[in-house]
Amino acid sequence: MSKRVAILTSGGDAPGMNACIRAVIIACQKANYTLIGYKHGYNGLLQQEYISLSLDSTHNLIQQGGTILHSARCEEFKTREGVFKAAKNLDKAEIDTLIVIGGDGSFRGAETLGEEWDGQILGIPGTIDNDIGGTDATIGYFTAIDTAMSSIDKVRDTADAFERIFLVEVMGRNAGFLALNAALSAAADYVVVPEFFESPDVEVTKIVSQIKAQRALKGPVSFIVVVAENVWPNGLNGLTEALQHHHINDVRPVTLGHVQRGGSPVAQDRLLATTLGEFAVSLVGSDITNIMVGEVNQRPVTVPLPKTWENAKPLNVARVDAMLTLMNERYNNV
Amino acid sequence: MSKRVAILTSGGDAPGMNACIRAVIIACQKANYTLIGYKHGYNGLLQQEYISLSLDSTHNLIQQGGTILHSARCEEFKTREGVFKAAKNLDKAEIDTLIVIGGDGSFRGAETLGEEWDGQILGIPGTIDNDIGGTDATIGYFTAIDTAMSSIDKVRDTADAFERIFLVEVMGRNAGFLALNAALSAAADYVVVPEFFESPDVEVTKIVSQIKAQRALKGPVSFIVVVAENVWPNGLNGLTEALQHHHINDVRPVTLGHVQRGGSPVAQDRLLATTLGEFAVSLVGSDITNIMVGEVNQRPVTVPLPKTWENAKPLNVARVDAMLTLMNERYNNV
Amino acid sequence: MSKRVAILTSGGDAPGMNACIRAVIIACQKANYTLIGYKHGYNGLLQQEYISLSLDSTHNLIQQGGTILHSARCEEFKTREGVFKAAKNLDKAEIDTLIVIGGDGSFRGAETLGEEWDGQILGIPGTIDNDIGGTDATIGYFTAIDTAMSSIDKVRDTADAFERIFLVEVMGRNAGFLALNAALSAAADYVVVPEFFESPDVEVTKIVSQIKAQRALKGPVSFIVVVAENVWPNGLNGLTEALQHHHINDVRPVTLGHVQRGGSPVAQDRLLATTLGEFAVSLVGSDITNIMVGEVNQRPVTVPLPKTWENAKPLNVARVDAMLTLMNERYNNV
Amino acid sequence: MSKRVAILTSGGDAPGMNACIRAVIIACQKANYTLIGYKHGYNGLLQQEYISLSLDSTHNLIQQGGTILHSARCEEFKTREGVFKAAKNLDKAEIDTLIVIGGDGSFRGAETLGEEWDGQILGIPGTIDNDIGGTDATIGYFTAIDTAMSSIDKVRDTADAFERIFLVEVMGRNAGFLALNAALSAAADYVVVPEFFESPDVEVTKIVSQIKAQRALKGPVSFIVVVAENVWPNGLNGLTEALQHHHINDVRPVTLGHVQRGGSPVAQDRLLATTLGEFAVSLVGSDITNIMVGEVNQRPVTVPLPKTWENAKPLNVARVDAMLTLMNERYNNV
Repeated sequence: MSKRVAILTSGGDAPGMNACIRAVIIACQKANYTLIGYKHGYNGLLQQEYISLSLDSTHNLIQQGGTILHSARCEEFKTREGVFKAAKNLDKAEIDTLIVIGGDGSFRGAETLGEEWDGQILGIPGTIDNDIGGTDATIGYFTAIDTAMSSIDKVRDTADAFERIFLVEVMGRNAGFLALNAALSAAADYVVVPEFFESPDVEVTKIVSQIKAQRALKGPVSFIVVVAENVWPNGLNGLTEALQHHHINDVRPVTLGHVQRGGSPVAQDRLLATTLGEFAVSLVGSDITNIMVGEVNQRPVTVPLPKTWENAKPLNVARVDAMLTLMNERYNNV
Repeated sequence: MSKRVAILTSGGDAPGMNACIRAVIIACQKANYTLIGYKHGYNGLLQQEYISLSLDSTHNLIQQGGTILHSARCEEFKTREGVFKAAKNLDKAEIDTLIVIGGDGSFRGAETLGEEWDGQILGIPGTIDNDIGGTDATIGYFTAIDTAMSSIDKVRDTADAFERIFLVEVMGRNAGFLALNAALSAAADYVVVPEFFESPDVEVTKIVSQIKAQRALKGPVSFIVVVAENVWPNGLNGLTEALQHHHINDVRPVTLGHVQRGGSPVAQDRLLATTLGEFAVSLVGSDITNIMVGEVNQRPVTVPLPKTWENAKPLNVARVDAMLTLMNERYNNV
Repeated sequence: MSKRVAILTSGGDAPGMNACIRAVIIACQKANYTLIGYKHGYNGLLQQEYISLSLDSTHNLIQQGGTILHSARCEEFKTREGVFKAAKNLDKAEIDTLIVIGGDGSFRGAETLGEEWDGQILGIPGTIDNDIGGTDATIGYFTAIDTAMSSIDKVRDTADAFERIFLVEVMGRNAGFLALNAALSAAADYVVVPEFFESPDVEVTKIVSQIKAQRALKGPVSFIVVVAENVWPNGLNGLTEALQHHHINDVRPVTLGHVQRGGSPVAQDRLLATTLGEFAVSLVGSDITNIMVGEVNQRPVTVPLPKTWENAKPLNVARVDAMLTLMNERYNNV
Repeated sequence: MSKRVAILTSGGDAPGMNACIRAVIIACQKANYTLIGYKHGYNGLLQQEYISLSLDSTHNLIQQGGTILHSARCEEFKTREGVFKAAKNLDKAEIDTLIVIGGDGSFRGAETLGEEWDGQILGIPGTIDNDIGGTDATIGYFTAIDTAMSSIDKVRDTADAFERIFLVEVMGRNAGFLALNAALSAAADYVVVPEFFESPDVEVTKIVSQIKAQRALKGPVSFIVVVAENVWPNGLNGLTEALQHHHINDVRPVTLGHVQRGGSPVAQDRLLATTLGEFAVSLVGSDITNIMVGEVNQRPVTVPLPKTWENAKPLNVARVDAMLTLMNERYNNV
């Protein structure tokens, strides 16, 4: 039976959101479903602002960063009245299934909507932060790692030329996935992430000891500290001051910033986005609802929405422990 | 107890081999192991051509393509005499553990060597082809997908401008991993891989029917066929002729070629290489031998060497089926 | 006074054509000119197939490869009847000025059209080959150099790993600009371009002597020969055979192919495209016609169309001589 | 006659410095000159810290960012005593010619050295800022434009997704070359550079009026303001506050930072670096001294050192005026 499906992107944009929209369009076309796209996240749902999505929209879409549906914050949707209105609008538009691509804020909104609306709700994880439980990776995460890594590779050129200390702030909201993997893949010399953060004093002592160990061994060398955002009190300025208390000056800060959210998605994000988009549409019309689709160990899974935010998702311990050992204690045993 | 470890790279080079060598160097340094690197694959073992590897060699190594140890074919090592000689040389150099980074040919060699030498042998999968059983991915595979995908993205620009048919040959030896994932991530219109290949006639009929369906729907449009190497009889020339028999001319062939083996590794390859390198060194001195280290579902595994080549490694069915459906039958139901 | 302007892209596509279209759109908008875009090169002119171009079309256009107006060959336009028809169609559409972005074939067509049509004709050089007289560079040329260079950088990784000889074919039609600059910037070991080509025998003797000199000095090393297309009889196969006659085997050919035409334009192409597009529109309504706009020594120039193809454009002798000396005779004096 | 040549890199590092060092090495080798490299800029000259440079150092050097000779500030060299010592050290090391790759600070130092030392001094312009008179471009400038442009391209993805205003700070010291060309090639909506800066009030009024004009025409859209460093009082924070006074909030700042100094050089920087390096060595032993080599209109030139800093180098007016018109007044006449 034919269905009416709606899709929106919400929260911070991530490379691969468009690849996912493309997959949803094609899968709906194949299944003879009608598809509309709400614009500006939940705002479009409240304003009944939407566009029709068909194969005409898919050309050269897989490689575009950003989201053609736009995204936005939506204060009104955080109120019960807003949610009522959204539910009513969905009914007016005769939508059977709403697909939401976004992060945990978007999924909390979707869960609340599910309490007021009895249509089908399917979430797809899209955020560079990878801080969503129930799925190994989120759309945009792989591209952001490569973007941050390439930037740190470039910073290394200057750091080496001047044998200087650089502090590089990497995004990730309250999780260390992005900072950690960027740091490891760029061969940074130290990384500060919330999951392993004890206190500024403890960390700065370790950093200083690593720097001194390196310099004792090799003379002046470059030293790159990757710092996840929202961890160090007062950010890179705070860390710079803390290092100055230890008589380490001539430190250069680099905040990678919003550059990390954009760009053409790498293959892993395009493939994940396509897989999850197709999988979501395959569930349309079933009684599976109020879930997020994800991938665990390369297999598709469905996760009740609250499970995506209830517990902080752990870093991959097996991998990370091994690699961190190589980085942080690199010069200890020499 | 201190150990003497040797490492070599063999077979086709792959991006991330150097990142793996770097991890092995650092891990050995930490464990107080002596590390030497044989040059030119098994040739170095036969010629006693090796270099010492220490932290001095690790600077800016993680991001370099190729392999600083070089690689080469080695006919002599395929003979029993060659293997004897290698075993004797390892004993002379007092090597406890030999680490081999390479593909299945390299592992067959290592297995044979294990019959004659009673030291420890550890393989690490390094090949862009991903055709090694017992591990989800091989070092170099992720970079090669992105390289091939970016090339197809560029071909698409011209294909679109001229609304023309392009045939793009992608590497992969006898497996379709690389071609399939490059095709899916680049939104190619058709893909020919050994795993799904029936016969030239069947395939060409499908291709022609897809082209005609697209053109009936949209008028002249670009159409990109990705073809894995070693599948189509006589390669792209063969396919071009087959299309001409169906009155489809004005087809352009592009063979991506060795470009796919090079380049700075993407983050996923650097991380995999680092993880596997560290893991291999952690096994040095244990009684685990004649195995390959790998990663399955993000956890480290050890695999007896013959298991790496005995059965053809299957494509990820869950993912691929879903995505292929979007591609090949895209215009069927319209 | 308001004008009606038409634009088309013709010949091989080149990165930056879209950036140029964007500049023309904005400049026309500012001048209150109406702008239409003919599709598929001169075919659109013959079939009256065109679209309106306004600011709505400019979003995210500057960075796209290919051409949104498409390109195509047009046999009919090579006949006098075709040219008549085109002239009549331009009059019917009340076009005052026709802007043609393309290469020398496109400009020859424009010149012939100028004999039959008394509107204003302005050419803009767009080709990766840079084989257009009267302008220092053509739109697309800079991007193609970087694309070819990056590919050769990657081939170098494998060439080094195996200390092997690679032959890399680079585009350029009948000119050596692209091959030469790609070879020099990628530190290739030898380059074959039409401008310096004496005979296969002479060239192969030089190549062999360079290879032998290098190997005498350094032992086995990689050696990369860049070969412009359409120079060597029977292409890379011909050169491979010629090397075999000198007992140099184990040579690998790589044909970069159409990858070189695509991709997002680099800054220099976007800037050139924008400059020339704006300049062309500034001439609309003047009595300057049947010319190509170009840039010489960073200043805008107008060049009568025939001057763009009458004489083969010379390579920059000052630069090239210096750099070639470094490459080809690198090991002579050691 | 054989000569002893020394080279150093000084000031901010720039992509292509290594390509230039490579060219100097090969050219010296060919001419049978002995070449040494002082490390850490002028510090190496004062500390007699140098290395021998030969063909062994050139492998894979052309594509590396940074500088293998390192760079550093040198307070001591700013004193007359420091310069005396440097002159004495050069004599002790029997240097005939000193080649300095750097920017205007480096050239001022070289000029002062020339007053105390009677050897030959040759400067080569290496800085991403392009603020050196007497040459059209400086080594590193082209790469930095592309790096900044690509970053802005990425910021655009997010800016579009959220229809938001972004402020992007680009390097350039006290010149607008880098910011202007990055802004134009990335299709930014406004650019603030020192050469055209009137006052914060005037600029902010223009920016606000552009934003309002765009939004009146199109509704909410993204808007990217590129700001050269060291222009706006208190930088991006200052501009953010100024916009708030005009009731424009929800502005996001991005400071590209040191990422702009690194990375593998693009072809134009590699070619310029190679040309200038070769040209400098060709002058060794002549009576031309205390000059910088440069390129004007694609021809090599020599410029007395003081001419490189005496007058602020003007932006290319012909090009820039045309392009700026397209950008800033884009929506005025609609």
